[in-house]
Amino acid sequence: MSLHPKVASTDHDVLDLIRRRWSPRAFDASRDVPRADLLRLFEAARWAPSSANEQPWRFIVAERERSPEAFAALMGTLTGRNPAWAGAAAVLVLIAVRMTHEKNDAPNRSAWYDAGQASAFLVMQATSMGLSVRQMEGFDHARAAGICGVPEPFETRVMMAIGYAGDPESLVVDVHREAERKPRSRKPVAELVFSAEWGKPLA
Amino acid sequence: MSLHPKVASTDHDVLDLIRRRWSPRAFDASRDVPRADLLRLFEAARWAPSSANEQPWRFIVAERERSPEAFAALMGTLTGRNPAWAGAAAVLVLIAVRMTHEKNDAPNRSAWYDAGQASAFLVMQATSMGLSVRQMEGFDHARAAGICGVPEPFETRVMMAIGYAGDPESLVVDVHREAERKPRSRKPVAELVFSAEWGKPLA
Repeated sequence: MSLHPKVASTDHDVLDLIRRRWSPRAFDASRDVPRADLLRLFEAARWAPSSANEQPWRFIVAERERSPEAFAALMGTLTGRNPAWAGAAAVLVLIAVRMTHEKNDAPNRSAWYDAGQASAFLVMQATSMGLSVRQMEGFDHARAAGICGVPEPFETRVMMAIGYAGDPESLVVDVHREAERKPRSRKPVAELVFSAEWGKPLA
Repeated sequence: MSLHPKVASTDHDVLDLIRRRWSPRAFDASRDVPRADLLRLFEAARWAPSSANEQPWRFIVAERERSPEAFAALMGTLTGRNPAWAGAAAVLVLIAVRMTHEKNDAPNRSAWYDAGQASAFLVMQATSMGLSVRQMEGFDHARAAGICGVPEPFETRVMMAIGYAGDPESLVVDVHREAERKPRSRKPVAELVFSAEWGKPLA
């Protein structure tokens, strides 16, 4: 039996969760994600490391079934071709990040880096539960922040779609259907990892 | 048998990898991390998601055993109390992030967020292999970038110490020894996760 085309062809052995994770656009619109399962995702994010344990991440959750107005409002902020697929996801999550340290209001330059780690923990947890996540920047950030009442000094720039992956044929945009079946690709390790100095390969 | 004090006491069930991960300062100076194991960490990072698949992350690796000069040079950039513990780690890794899109040199505002995801994948992989990672901002970023020859438009702001966790008693700074035994703490879920609008708890 051949592997799903999205299973990464890795050069070195890695966690099965990492090999199997990918970011679909096709979600199964018939399947909800129960509240109890959602809470496990955010619990995973909560335990990510952060600079000075600031935990600058906040998640505003719009559930298609349980908060349809918020879900529709966030859908209305999507740009490009995101509206063509995201509506089938069970949940949209707006990420807001505190850009200052709580203690002294000084800029927290690690805030987005730390939020990325929390999101990655969420994604790993989701993958382990058979859920999929696709992250987007393509939305009106200011409008989304306004809709959800995100205050200063928080910044929004990323939205997640979460649900069960669906049938690629359900996608209406041709290139989206095609992308769903292409193998995942990455730069070679030699371009990403150096030994002691820039450009010198580790292996 | 009681659990290790660093095993997270979670409100909702999460991956064992996430419960068990933490960031020690005490590393076992007698244990090396073989090159083949290091490559698995970077392979894990490689498969993280990124905006437009830009993969803005780069890792410059200084191994205490195999590149002692680079290791010592990066040690020399550490600030605060980081020099008091980091030298026992087997490996230091400087993270460099491309701040522009490759296609058009426009600013990539997701670059650090994406790098955070790659680092989190690396950390998960490390945890699964019995390795520990502690990330630091406390170093002279410009000097470290200079030592490793990091070019524009890459930015450096994070360094990782990687190795096998060691005996807390090996730490010379009192508060470091104490921190090693304190339970991990996080904000309550109700402060981090909202339903539909800011401040309204999801559960």
